[in-house]
Amino acid sequence: MKNKGTMNTRISSLFQKSKRPFILIAGPCSIESKEQIYQVTEILTEENLSFLRGGIHKMRTNPHSFQGLGEQAIDIIKNLKDSHDFNFVSEITDPRQIEVLSPIVDIFQVGTRNMYNYELLKELGKQQKPVLLKRAFSAKVTEWLMAAEYLIQSGNEQIILCERGIRTFETSTRNTLDLSGALIAKEKSSLPVIVDPSHGTGKSSLVTPMALAATAAGLDGLLIEIHPEPEKAMSDGYQSLNFIQFKQLLKQLRKILASVDRKIESGFFYENFPDRDTSERNKENIQLHSS
Amino acid sequence: MKNKGTMNTRISSLFQKSKRPFILIAGPCSIESKEQIYQVTEILTEENLSFLRGGIHKMRTNPHSFQGLGEQAIDIIKNLKDSHDFNFVSEITDPRQIEVLSPIVDIFQVGTRNMYNYELLKELGKQQKPVLLKRAFSAKVTEWLMAAEYLIQSGNEQIILCERGIRTFETSTRNTLDLSGALIAKEKSSLPVIVDPSHGTGKSSLVTPMALAATAAGLDGLLIEIHPEPEKAMSDGYQSLNFIQFKQLLKQLRKILASVDRKIESGFFYENFPDRDTSERNKENIQLHSS
Amino acid sequence: MKNKGTMNTRISSLFQKSKRPFILIAGPCSIESKEQIYQVTEILTEENLSFLRGGIHKMRTNPHSFQGLGEQAIDIIKNLKDSHDFNFVSEITDPRQIEVLSPIVDIFQVGTRNMYNYELLKELGKQQKPVLLKRAFSAKVTEWLMAAEYLIQSGNEQIILCERGIRTFETSTRNTLDLSGALIAKEKSSLPVIVDPSHGTGKSSLVTPMALAATAAGLDGLLIEIHPEPEKAMSDGYQSLNFIQFKQLLKQLRKILASVDRKIESGFFYENFPDRDTSERNKENIQLHSS
Amino acid sequence: MKNKGTMNTRISSLFQKSKRPFILIAGPCSIESKEQIYQVTEILTEENLSFLRGGIHKMRTNPHSFQGLGEQAIDIIKNLKDSHDFNFVSEITDPRQIEVLSPIVDIFQVGTRNMYNYELLKELGKQQKPVLLKRAFSAKVTEWLMAAEYLIQSGNEQIILCERGIRTFETSTRNTLDLSGALIAKEKSSLPVIVDPSHGTGKSSLVTPMALAATAAGLDGLLIEIHPEPEKAMSDGYQSLNFIQFKQLLKQLRKILASVDRKIESGFFYENFPDRDTSERNKENIQLHSS
Repeated sequence: MKNKGTMNTRISSLFQKSKRPFILIAGPCSIESKEQIYQVTEILTEENLSFLRGGIHKMRTNPHSFQGLGEQAIDIIKNLKDSHDFNFVSEITDPRQIEVLSPIVDIFQVGTRNMYNYELLKELGKQQKPVLLKRAFSAKVTEWLMAAEYLIQSGNEQIILCERGIRTFETSTRNTLDLSGALIAKEKSSLPVIVDPSHGTGKSSLVTPMALAATAAGLDGLLIEIHPEPEKAMSDGYQSLNFIQFKQLLKQLRKILASVDRKIESGFFYENFPDRDTSERNKENIQLHSS
Repeated sequence: MKNKGTMNTRISSLFQKSKRPFILIAGPCSIESKEQIYQVTEILTEENLSFLRGGIHKMRTNPHSFQGLGEQAIDIIKNLKDSHDFNFVSEITDPRQIEVLSPIVDIFQVGTRNMYNYELLKELGKQQKPVLLKRAFSAKVTEWLMAAEYLIQSGNEQIILCERGIRTFETSTRNTLDLSGALIAKEKSSLPVIVDPSHGTGKSSLVTPMALAATAAGLDGLLIEIHPEPEKAMSDGYQSLNFIQFKQLLKQLRKILASVDRKIESGFFYENFPDRDTSERNKENIQLHSS
Repeated sequence: MKNKGTMNTRISSLFQKSKRPFILIAGPCSIESKEQIYQVTEILTEENLSFLRGGIHKMRTNPHSFQGLGEQAIDIIKNLKDSHDFNFVSEITDPRQIEVLSPIVDIFQVGTRNMYNYELLKELGKQQKPVLLKRAFSAKVTEWLMAAEYLIQSGNEQIILCERGIRTFETSTRNTLDLSGALIAKEKSSLPVIVDPSHGTGKSSLVTPMALAATAAGLDGLLIEIHPEPEKAMSDGYQSLNFIQFKQLLKQLRKILASVDRKIESGFFYENFPDRDTSERNKENIQLHSS
Repeated sequence: MKNKGTMNTRISSLFQKSKRPFILIAGPCSIESKEQIYQVTEILTEENLSFLRGGIHKMRTNPHSFQGLGEQAIDIIKNLKDSHDFNFVSEITDPRQIEVLSPIVDIFQVGTRNMYNYELLKELGKQQKPVLLKRAFSAKVTEWLMAAEYLIQSGNEQIILCERGIRTFETSTRNTLDLSGALIAKEKSSLPVIVDPSHGTGKSSLVTPMALAATAAGLDGLLIEIHPEPEKAMSDGYQSLNFIQFKQLLKQLRKILASVDRKIESGFFYENFPDRDTSERNKENIQLHSS
């Protein structure tokens, strides 16, 4: 039986410098329905992957764009956790969301537009959960590390940095994925640095090559947007992989990782549900309705 | 006697497109002491200027840098309002600060790093006070206008846009002040657009020429950092004007404005202190101590 | 009668730091026909302006775009010089063009894409004519000054620097006109620095406000694209002023210049045609045919 | 015996889209001495690599910096070609250099600052030699492809595109290596696209990881700065690999290439020396076979 109540040993190795496992986080931009997220979780389980991402409250430039399912998404994840093992990664955009998100979120994601939101960072610094700190698309590496310093100063050293593309003059890609900046962040800190080639390129055709590039460069993991039907996604479909593309990516990725004696992490955080007895789950029983 | 309890008529003209008055906001980056802010306010009064800026909670990239006086600055401003007339402009960095800042702040400033903080914008959209919305240094004009749209959607149309420099490859200035971007924002919206040449250039020697440039271009106002002794300022001294420089700027500015039949706005907001009887004030009596 | 054979005294004051005259260069992007350039020259004469620009060999990103009239344009200018007084400013893109352009060009323009073409700069450094050195849209101010240094090292100190917008992430304007960068170039060198708001913004509606801004900032001149019928121009029509707009600009410009006791330069270079007797000209006699 | 007088078949496969060989070009930034370039060539021979780079005329921002050995370097390479087989890649900065460089240069490199030098491109378009066209550090991918179009229009389709980093706001690296831009260039054209991680990052510690990244992304080759003693290099030493580092890179590179069934190209161009009888050479009996 698994270690409950504290972060398990393997996961905590994420935050140690030597022989770091490779972190693969995948999932849709937004949680859109029970079915959608169930299908994604099934794929992760099949592939022995342990980090699911999914947006609850979306940050959208345009206030008229889809803003996420909110409360409803929280219930969907709560139910899904009864039947499936996964570490749930989701964005937080306001200190006042901590209370409602804490029961289901295992890793708080700070999005690119909130990297400079120091009040939010100070609050997350007081939490016991890891924080995935995306680089602002306008941030120099030193500013990104300073944002991490806000978390550390407030007491939280469980930080995963995530490069997701910077804003440049080039317009043929949504952003310019700055792998060398990510390497500098690794050189200058002791933190794991992962890469998001989905936002980093904004083009599904570039996700796989740039994911492999990040891996060959020695970075610590990937955040990949996947969707059962990208062409029908409510946000970011143009940069999401479908399941077939994702499985092909995994195959190539494992080849490169094997060649440098590295593996994808497959452990779980359990401190959120210390009383949960995972042996009682019955995955067959999950009810799926459109919502 | 002045109109109390509601915004006076002249000020509301800020938000009308034709024959807009010119908005001149000046003050130190951070409120550092009673004396400092008193001296600044005296200069504004002398020059018949009605907008004082001053930082209470500072956004600093480095968590170890001076973060502002906080509570103490609030008391300083509260006392100063008993003896002086001014509209107080100050930055808000967290929705939870609205309650404590509301009694003294007449215009909420949203800083460059919070332009994408949509949760903050939604809360400010519910307030009755004008919002000075700085452009993120990484924001396209369309994103800046979208951020304004978050305020408007939540009910607040009293918005002053403020261009403060964008991040480019050029390193000889702190930022690149984008006057043509500011003009586009004016073209595409009905909002007043002012310019902050202090942050926009990061060099006191460039503040006056760029302030005059913005004025000649037909923009609607300026935000200028001034300090009694810039070389001793706790933040941003290198881009602040001293009082002599500021008075020289005003002289040149008034010449350009006169040539296009425009004037600096000198009215006040009063809805914050509906019961205050300004006739009772005794400016002579103010006690100044180091704090 | 005018000073022949050497640069006249007033013009040489362009290259002295104190009390510099204001340089106004205007003309079409490309010379398209005898009529077009004749009409432009007439306007300049009417307004007592002495610098005409016009492209002979155009630098075009797309090799299939209009590349300029070449030889034919040279003849047009040669003829026009018989009847009109003007200093002709035109772009040179290859050291091998010096011989053919020298008889008609009074100021060699080095375009934004050639600022780094050091072989070209070394050759121009050996010429006796002033060089208008545009900043590369990607150049830091220090690199721009280094390019000027290539000219100076080769013997030519008659340099006019020209800011014409830098490439940034902002896409609502063609470039971001960097007035503060231009001011830094002025601070760091003893060279005159002028501004091209036509390329700098890429939008005719922004040309006038940004031209006034540059003037109010204390810069040394302007390069303005004008065209008898911008909507029919073979290149850059969208950023060219028509004659009515140009005259309005001049009116506002002169007001700002007067307020700082400055004037538009109206002198001529004559070293190109030492034998020419300008008294013999008969402007009435010019024959205009389409060509 | 080898095919003389025309490009051999294997090399021409560089310019075919399917099953392209991987191009590895290595050498010092500048040719500094006979010994230096001899040592480098020996390493290439040992590793069965066929492309040597070396600067003859250097483009330097500062006119007072080392500008290359010029004539002397030409003699060095001429002599070296008598004893060694290699394709020599060197930068050309002026159309007037074609004549003197043609006898020794097998691939003309157009540097980042000359990508917009269309007069140079038109001349190179008339040559029979391949052109390595570096992306301007300020060029959008579409502009880079347009520059290639200038070559193609003039008759030369033997083009190798080379991504070498773009200029962004990030200052912790010399440039931002834009691998996704390179992939877009590959998608949109039928040309091979290689990557220069030396200039792309400006830091020797980043050269190997970014070289592996480019390879894993599926790009077509690398341009690597190597030097016998980088710390003593007259230019760019801080971004050059020493021989030990280079050999380690090759080892890792071959592993990744093998995993995708790709090989480093080891053939030679011979059209430059149609009369040379390579059978007469005696440099330790080197055996050259197609592989």
